[in-house]
Amino acid sequence: MICLLCGDFDPGEEAAWQQALGSALAAALPQAQCWPLADVQAATAAQRAAVQVAFVANPPAGALQGLPGLRLVQSLWAGVDKLLADPTLPPDVPLARMVDPAMTAAMAETALWAVLALQRGFFTYAAQQRAGLWRPHAQRRAQDLCVTVLGQGEMGRAVSAVLARQGHAVQGWRRDGQALAPLLAASDVVVNLLPLTADTRGLINAGFLAQLPRGAALVNLARGAHVVDADLLAALDSGQLSHAVLDVFHTEPLPAGHAYWQHPRVTVLPHAAAFTDPRSAAPVAAANVQAMLAGRPLLGLVDRRRGY
Amino acid sequence: MICLLCGDFDPGEEAAWQQALGSALAAALPQAQCWPLADVQAATAAQRAAVQVAFVANPPAGALQGLPGLRLVQSLWAGVDKLLADPTLPPDVPLARMVDPAMTAAMAETALWAVLALQRGFFTYAAQQRAGLWRPHAQRRAQDLCVTVLGQGEMGRAVSAVLARQGHAVQGWRRDGQALAPLLAASDVVVNLLPLTADTRGLINAGFLAQLPRGAALVNLARGAHVVDADLLAALDSGQLSHAVLDVFHTEPLPAGHAYWQHPRVTVLPHAAAFTDPRSAAPVAAANVQAMLAGRPLLGLVDRRRGY
Repeated sequence: MICLLCGDFDPGEEAAWQQALGSALAAALPQAQCWPLADVQAATAAQRAAVQVAFVANPPAGALQGLPGLRLVQSLWAGVDKLLADPTLPPDVPLARMVDPAMTAAMAETALWAVLALQRGFFTYAAQQRAGLWRPHAQRRAQDLCVTVLGQGEMGRAVSAVLARQGHAVQGWRRDGQALAPLLAASDVVVNLLPLTADTRGLINAGFLAQLPRGAALVNLARGAHVVDADLLAALDSGQLSHAVLDVFHTEPLPAGHAYWQHPRVTVLPHAAAFTDPRSAAPVAAANVQAMLAGRPLLGLVDRRRGY
Repeated sequence: MICLLCGDFDPGEEAAWQQALGSALAAALPQAQCWPLADVQAATAAQRAAVQVAFVANPPAGALQGLPGLRLVQSLWAGVDKLLADPTLPPDVPLARMVDPAMTAAMAETALWAVLALQRGFFTYAAQQRAGLWRPHAQRRAQDLCVTVLGQGEMGRAVSAVLARQGHAVQGWRRDGQALAPLLAASDVVVNLLPLTADTRGLINAGFLAQLPRGAALVNLARGAHVVDADLLAALDSGQLSHAVLDVFHTEPLPAGHAYWQHPRVTVLPHAAAFTDPRSAAPVAAANVQAMLAGRPLLGLVDRRRGY
């Protein structure tokens, strides 16, 4: 069996995946080979027909065409919105998003760090340091901070759990659950971990932000397109929102000169809230290959109509 | 019974303490009154003799003199190094430092925030944002970060527990315990929560810092005098230390123009890592008054020879 491996990897990253996937597959499937895209594209028809699995990480459009034996597309990234937007994606092959325990833990760390900083004023103290200003502020207790977590998939649930464990008052919301308005009205902080779908694109707009209490904060760790940038900037400038921690943007890298870069109430992260870790993700991918071969359910199987 | 209340309170803070202590004392000791220092100083000899308890928060030197009935000095702050340095402190009256669960929780929050930021590069990302630089860095796992917590009193233990729960590899050190050198050699981060005594003053000097692995970080949440500033700055400038989070300083407020303010590898907090919260501390103080009256052991009783 041949497994295609392709994606938008950083230098050295593809080799790390090659090695981690090779090790993870070796025990159960010693005959499996991981081929990079260039090798698959240069392969014979028989070899292309032997490609049963594609491990992908935002692959170039068309990369998965002409593979008649393909039985599983396993994304190495958790978000599959870019992948689903590719019209050449084979329509009938099961697609799984990555559910990596290390990435989930990293996302919870980033959310916890951001919420602690908002609760205790550490972004304010950083600005004060740049101004040479010594001014302690009143200390808020964890239990007095109400945090709403949008999205209750693997990551949303993990973030909710770590914040609750830390003593914060946590409200979880999922799109098919309870009404959002009353949750927003009680929120000191909103943490966004929704998947990007037609239903969630632009959710965080002027109407959404106006429902928050004045001075609330936003932590967006999901997708830039969840946010209407002009509305967020207006809410920050009016004081309706006190701070935004943004890891994701409509265009990445965030373009030079974008208002977010130098905004005093915005913390910009370079889409680094959580990375998939090949050491823990490769065994998950290999287990899904085995599940596919054995006809067992896949972890992270994507419902294409739902969009995640 | 009269209780003296005096200290270096911020505006409005003394009234909050007056109210919280009054409420906490009311149930068990309805006859107790809290008097500010000015009233005690203007009082009759008989009234002064009725002062059995002093609730103090860095009181002015001499404030506790001439109170023949004094039976308990209850500090409202956790650190008593300034109080013990006052030669007019009555030598034979039991002295208790504050053990406030809200302050302990706040200290754990600050330590957790700082360690998460160091583990995940959030201070680096903040500097990159100011430079308009989009550059993700490799993600370190919690278990790969070894954190040494200096001090294993209430706060050191609470910080150790919250870091261990978060998955960090934690080493606790107390001055009368194991050797420090091997712990330092394995430390990615050192969090200082020691009491300031003759034995710990200047502990974090060139020799201490040289024992850390290159690129380690320091989080000082205890006292500025634990650190030899020139040695810390030299270690930061040489790259021996990658970052320092400093909440406490030899002189507070940190003087304008001090090298820490604008140092790219220093995060300055305005002695705000953890405040005593009157809502939870007043009941602790009241319980100690009752313990004193009943001859039971005091919570946080200071050993004056030990210095904390």
